[in-house]
Amino acid sequence: MSSVLVDNIGELVTNGAGEGPLGLHRDAAVLVEEGRVAWVGPSAHAPAADRRVDVGGAAVLPGFVDSHAHLVFAGDRAAEFGARMAGAPYTGGGIRTTVGATRAATDEELRANLRRLRGEALRQGTTTMEIKSGYGLTVADEARSLRIAAEASGETTFLGAHVVPAEYADRPDDYVGLVCGPMLAAAAPYAKWIDVFCERGAFDVDQARAILASGQAARLGVRIHANQLGPGQGVQLGVELGAASVDHCTHLSDADVDALAGTAHRDGSGTRTVATLLPGAEFSTRSPYPDARRLLDAGVTVALATDCNPGSSYTSSMPFCVALAVREMRMTPAEAVWAATAGGARALRRDDIGILTPGARADLVVLDAPSYLHLAYRPGVPLIRQVMRNGVTP
Amino acid sequence: MSSVLVDNIGELVTNGAGEGPLGLHRDAAVLVEEGRVAWVGPSAHAPAADRRVDVGGAAVLPGFVDSHAHLVFAGDRAAEFGARMAGAPYTGGGIRTTVGATRAATDEELRANLRRLRGEALRQGTTTMEIKSGYGLTVADEARSLRIAAEASGETTFLGAHVVPAEYADRPDDYVGLVCGPMLAAAAPYAKWIDVFCERGAFDVDQARAILASGQAARLGVRIHANQLGPGQGVQLGVELGAASVDHCTHLSDADVDALAGTAHRDGSGTRTVATLLPGAEFSTRSPYPDARRLLDAGVTVALATDCNPGSSYTSSMPFCVALAVREMRMTPAEAVWAATAGGARALRRDDIGILTPGARADLVVLDAPSYLHLAYRPGVPLIRQVMRNGVTP
Ligand SMILES: [Zn+2]
Ligand SMILES: [Zn+2]
Repeated sequence: MSSVLVDNIGELVTNGAGEGPLGLHRDAAVLVEEGRVAWVGPSAHAPAADRRVDVGGAAVLPGFVDSHAHLVFAGDRAAEFGARMAGAPYTGGGIRTTVGATRAATDEELRANLRRLRGEALRQGTTTMEIKSGYGLTVADEARSLRIAAEASGETTFLGAHVVPAEYADRPDDYVGLVCGPMLAAAAPYAKWIDVFCERGAFDVDQARAILASGQAARLGVRIHANQLGPGQGVQLGVELGAASVDHCTHLSDADVDALAGTAHRDGSGTRTVATLLPGAEFSTRSPYPDARRLLDAGVTVALATDCNPGSSYTSSMPFCVALAVREMRMTPAEAVWAATAGGARALRRDDIGILTPGARADLVVLDAPSYLHLAYRPGVPLIRQVMRNGVTP
Repeated sequence: MSSVLVDNIGELVTNGAGEGPLGLHRDAAVLVEEGRVAWVGPSAHAPAADRRVDVGGAAVLPGFVDSHAHLVFAGDRAAEFGARMAGAPYTGGGIRTTVGATRAATDEELRANLRRLRGEALRQGTTTMEIKSGYGLTVADEARSLRIAAEASGETTFLGAHVVPAEYADRPDDYVGLVCGPMLAAAAPYAKWIDVFCERGAFDVDQARAILASGQAARLGVRIHANQLGPGQGVQLGVELGAASVDHCTHLSDADVDALAGTAHRDGSGTRTVATLLPGAEFSTRSPYPDARRLLDAGVTVALATDCNPGSSYTSSMPFCVALAVREMRMTPAEAVWAATAGGARALRRDDIGILTPGARADLVVLDAPSYLHLAYRPGVPLIRQVMRNGVTP
């Protein structure tokens, strides 16, 4: 594989050494070899390469790491969305609509829908995307969801505990048993992570503990949907179990924030639990946003992700989430961009992505703009001019 | 010129006769001849054409009409934006920064920047875009701004009264005299409209009346920036003068709403004053949004536009404004889409755009989605698959 010099970068976000929290370099170049970053430094001192790409002074940043997305499903819920915008509340109950459509779909239909959304996200700069199951909710349908997800991403998450399916409505503990037993066994070969929707109306904290512990026994890493619709014990459960990430974090007590902040001090990097905020969900359900400032000011590691799903947040756009984080959660543009790149990588316990330093994967985006600031300054505008993934332009 | 049949449209928004407020047709086709819509009806009965474009069941709507944009300027104000997101208020004072950069720019620099933004908007489905001057603020710089604007749009607006430039800070009435006299004379040959920023810190209602009356005497149509940052008399001045549109309308009294609603009853369509809402400005200045429901419920005609400018709203995206209008201003998706198409046309007193009925200009967009609902349901996602302007794909 030949080397490529990405040159004439007006502003380079490395998330490593450099100016400010984003490790900025000016008038910079990045040498890419074998799909990895081989060298970063001033354009004037750039080494020779087989090919040179002149980005004309544009800003370059690590590809976005979207650490929370639900892409294996069929159908859409545009009508439910329209009703919600006319005043109906979001309860998560519509998930069952998508479960019905997903079970009825062929593998090829699910694959085509996933491919469409993954391509859409890639064009918007997302070079890594976590993909959850959770719309199958039978042993066979969860296994095939994860099999299809694994074709598209190494970051796959078993979310059999998304909602109790209608056929188990009067015996939810039997469903928990199914999830912990045969469904986990069938899903685990295709999954890296296990996740539970721990919320009133979905799974309570005891059910969630049982499911996540089963996943850990099957060597899956832990993630949890928690404290989205109201207060609860999910965040502290996540911290207790050493979850890589607790996601949503909209309704937090002081003890929740302390628990998340406390994870920072346990050891180096491995056991930290990230708070992943999903402002697209609050946007599309007209809900109050999480208090990102409280988390950041307490020293919690924050990630941003899309929660892309057909019910509560049907956006695949990480730039949109960055703009929302700045407008609605009072993150600075630098905090938001870090959270959408390096923060997402931490939430997936990855140290090879979300950064542009030697040895990292050559996943990067070239903006149609001179600075990362424009991702918040120019909301809604498609600013991703070019994407490189594993050193290759897709 | 040959005829084109845009066929296999799953959902067609006509803004004319049809289902609901958007005049929807299902399984429809549109025949385009000589840059105009020649026929609209069911696919099954479509006439023959020289060429057929199969959109595969996608939604088609009229191209967006962005009736409020400031595109003739140089430089950006990303640093000011960053400071504002860290807590500094928006006062409009930064306009002078852009005035300095614009005066220092060459014609070709201004033209290139305008072309970049116009292209960006077109790719997001905007087929008509009003363009204001207002960053020159000398006789020569306002005239050249409008000359350059007129190369790109027939909807050009003289906004010499954007802010009092620094060199007139201690004698604002002299500046008003300049705007009403030599500046208007130099600008009018290139302008269709006159506009004033009527706000504390910019121009008061007496100054605004003098300037707009001068514009009317020079046969320009009237528009006004009013009631953005606080209450004021601008809205009622606009109605009094028969303005095509009063823009912003964030801080309204009952009398303001009554005045706007009253215009509906004067006669048919010609003299109605539209309320143009610009939610991108509230997004990017962290300000409260206008109360669209109050206006709609009172029977006021509402348009949506971007206010694209480098200070308070640097978005060119009409889909983003539609999504914001639904989330933040409680417009229904149908009301928002109407306001971004037919509403914009009303705000420009045009009856040939914003609709897809026989005789209208063939300005249309094909979505990467089965329904117009997706513009709000999928916020931030670039959903414009194809654009046709004057019957031609650019
Ligand atoms: Zn989720
Ligand atoms: Zn404006």
